[in-house]
Amino acid sequence: MINLSILGSTGSIGTQALEIAKIFKNRINITAISGNQNIDLLEEQIERFKPKLCAVMDVEKSKILKSRISSKTKIVSGLKGLVEVASYENSDTTLTAVSGMVGLIPTASAIKAKKRIALANKETLVAGGSLITKMAEKYEVEIIPVDSEHSAIFQCLQGNNSKNIEKIILTASGGPFLNRDLKYLKKVGVDEALNHPNWSMGKKITVDSATLMNKGLEMIEAYWLFNVDYNNIEVVVHPESIIHSGVEFIDKSVIAQMGLPDMKLPIQYALFYPNRIKNNLKSLNLFDTGQLNFLRPDTDIFKCLDLAYYAVKVGGSMPAVLNAANEIAVDKFLKKEIKFLDISNLIEKVLAKHQPYAIDDIEAIINIQKWTDQKVKEISL
Amino acid sequence: MINLSILGSTGSIGTQALEIAKIFKNRINITAISGNQNIDLLEEQIERFKPKLCAVMDVEKSKILKSRISSKTKIVSGLKGLVEVASYENSDTTLTAVSGMVGLIPTASAIKAKKRIALANKETLVAGGSLITKMAEKYEVEIIPVDSEHSAIFQCLQGNNSKNIEKIILTASGGPFLNRDLKYLKKVGVDEALNHPNWSMGKKITVDSATLMNKGLEMIEAYWLFNVDYNNIEVVVHPESIIHSGVEFIDKSVIAQMGLPDMKLPIQYALFYPNRIKNNLKSLNLFDTGQLNFLRPDTDIFKCLDLAYYAVKVGGSMPAVLNAANEIAVDKFLKKEIKFLDISNLIEKVLAKHQPYAIDDIEAIINIQKWTDQKVKEISL
Repeated sequence: MINLSILGSTGSIGTQALEIAKIFKNRINITAISGNQNIDLLEEQIERFKPKLCAVMDVEKSKILKSRISSKTKIVSGLKGLVEVASYENSDTTLTAVSGMVGLIPTASAIKAKKRIALANKETLVAGGSLITKMAEKYEVEIIPVDSEHSAIFQCLQGNNSKNIEKIILTASGGPFLNRDLKYLKKVGVDEALNHPNWSMGKKITVDSATLMNKGLEMIEAYWLFNVDYNNIEVVVHPESIIHSGVEFIDKSVIAQMGLPDMKLPIQYALFYPNRIKNNLKSLNLFDTGQLNFLRPDTDIFKCLDLAYYAVKVGGSMPAVLNAANEIAVDKFLKKEIKFLDISNLIEKVLAKHQPYAIDDIEAIINIQKWTDQKVKEISL
Repeated sequence: MINLSILGSTGSIGTQALEIAKIFKNRINITAISGNQNIDLLEEQIERFKPKLCAVMDVEKSKILKSRISSKTKIVSGLKGLVEVASYENSDTTLTAVSGMVGLIPTASAIKAKKRIALANKETLVAGGSLITKMAEKYEVEIIPVDSEHSAIFQCLQGNNSKNIEKIILTASGGPFLNRDLKYLKKVGVDEALNHPNWSMGKKITVDSATLMNKGLEMIEAYWLFNVDYNNIEVVVHPESIIHSGVEFIDKSVIAQMGLPDMKLPIQYALFYPNRIKNNLKSLNLFDTGQLNFLRPDTDIFKCLDLAYYAVKVGGSMPAVLNAANEIAVDKFLKKEIKFLDISNLIEKVLAKHQPYAIDDIEAIINIQKWTDQKVKEISL
C-alpha cells in the first residue's frame, strides 16, 4: 500500500493521479492533498478519498473549506500548509504536481522527511537542480520523474548503467505552432497557444509547449536527473508524441519508450515503480499510427530552447532566472499583457541583465525570483 | 577476456564477429572456428586469430586445409568436428552462426558443455525449441540472442520482469518484395530475392526475408526465447528497419530498441552482455531518418508467415517440419529448380501431409528432416 501525499491535487496531474488511486484503491491510500484555490474540487476530493490532511494555498479559501467539511480532515493553508502536506508523517510518497516555483520548498521538505518523490514539477529542478539532487543524495531519497519524457528516459535506463549513456533523445511534439512562421506567430493569442495537439495539460505547461520553453526546461531537468552533459541531450521534434524519449548508449544501441500520449502511464509508473501494474489504458497500435516523423526544432523562430541551453551552460543562478522570467512572461501572456513572441524576448532581456552566481541554498533561489520580478519591471519590450 | 568458439566463422555473422574480435582484441580471444567449405577464408582466419581448433564440415577440404597450415591449430571435420568446436574445453562462449538445421546438434553439445550461447541460428529453436530451452535450463546455460529482433527484445527486457510482457512487437523490413503483387512475384528470380534493401546477410536468410518466412521463424524463436504466447507476438512491417523490435508491457508502456541496421551491434551485445562497450558504429540520427513507417504484413501474398503461426499453434513436430520444408524449398529456389511462389506452396503441401507428434529428443528432429526430405519428393507443385 502506497500512502500518498499529492501536492496540487486539483491540477491536471493531480486529478489524473486521483483517478489512478480510484482504480487501484487497494494499492494507493490518499493521505494528504493540496490545492491553490479550487476548494469546490478539494471538497469533492476530501469526500471521495478521505485524506487526513488538506492544504489550501489561499488562506481565506481554506477557512471556507474548513467550514464545509467534517473534522476528520485537517485543513491547513499557505506555503506552510503545502510543506505540511509534502512531508506528512503518514505518507511515504509525495507527488509534487504543482506548477511552477511554488513546488520548490515543499519538495525540499519532502526530501528532508525522506519521502519518495514522484516529481511532476520540473521548475524545482530547473531552478534548484544542484541543491535538490544533492539533498536527495544526502537523505537517500529516490526521485522518480513523472514528466512523460523523463519517465521514458528513466524506463529506458532500467537494467542499464547510466554511465553508459552516449546521448539522450528528448522528443518534443512541437506544440500547437509547429511549422508556423513568424508572421503567424506575431498575431497568435492565448486560445491558440492553449490548443495543444496531443497532450491535455495545465495552462502554464501548455504555453511552455507552444514556445518550446517546456523542452528547454525538460532538457535542464534531464541534465539534473540523469547527470548527462547538456550537449548530449538532443531535442527531436516528433509531432505524433508516440516515442516519449530515448537513450542512446555507448554501443550505439537506442532504447526508447513509446505509447499513446496519456499522462496516466507515467504517473502510474512513478507511483508503482519498480513494478508495472496491469491497467485499462489504450494500447499503442502501430498500424493505426502508421507513421512517425522527426525533425529539427526551428530555434530561429522558437528562441526559448536556445535560451535554456544558454542558461544551463552558464550555470549557477542563470537557470533559476530563466525559469522565473519564463513564469512571469507566461503569466503576462495569459493575462494578455504581452504578445506570444514577447515571451522569449522578455526572457532574453532578463538573462542579459543577470550576473550569475552560485546557488548555495533555497533562500538564494527565492532571491532570484525577487530579483527577476524587479528586473522585468525595468524592461521595455 | 571472452574465449570464443565460432560455429560458422566464414559466414555473414561469423566474419562480422571476427571483425569485432579484431577491434576488441584485448577482450575477445578466438579459441575455435568452423566453416563449411571455404578453406581459403578459414586459412586467413587461422593466420589472423590463431585459434587452437578449426572444424571444416567438408572432410576432403579439411585435409587440404590441414596441409596448408602450421600444426598449432588442430583441424577437425564433419559434424563431429563442429561439435568439437561448439563444446571446446578452452572456450567459455559459443557463437552459433551456422545457417540451418546443421546448428542443432553442435548447439545442444555446447549447452551440455555449459558454454554460454550467443545464438544466431534460429532454426535450432524453431525445430527444437522445447528440447533446447529445457536443456539450457537444466545445464543453467544462458542463451543470448544475436538476431537483431531478438537482441532488441532481449535488450528491452533488461530491468523488466518478462512476466509483465503484454505483447512482443516483432518488426519486419518487409524484404525486397514489399508492396509487390502476385503478378510480379510470379516472375521474380534469385537475383531479385537476394537484393535485400536494408540488411546484408547470408543467402538463405535473405530469401527467407523475401518470403517473410524469416519473420515466421523469428516469431517461433521469440516464442521459445521469451516464453510468450504466439498470439501475443505481433509482426509489424517497418520498411526502414530502425526499430528492431519492442515489448509492450502490461501497463501499456512500450520499450523498443532502435539503431541503424548493422548486425555488429547485436553480435557485440551478445558477446559482452550484460555490458555495453563503446564502439565506432554509426549513431542513429533521427533527423536523417526523418520518418518511420508501419504497416500490416500482406499474408494473402506472403503466405509463409501464416504457415509459421499454424505450425507453432499445432506444436510438437510441426514447426520442425516447417523449418525442414523451408530449408529444402529455399535450396531448390536458389538452384532455380522451383519458382519464388512455390516456396510457400511446397511448405504448405508438406505441412498438410504431416501428422504431428511430440519431440522427445534430437533424434526425433533428425527423423523429421528425413521424413520431410522424403515427402518433398512425393509432392508435385
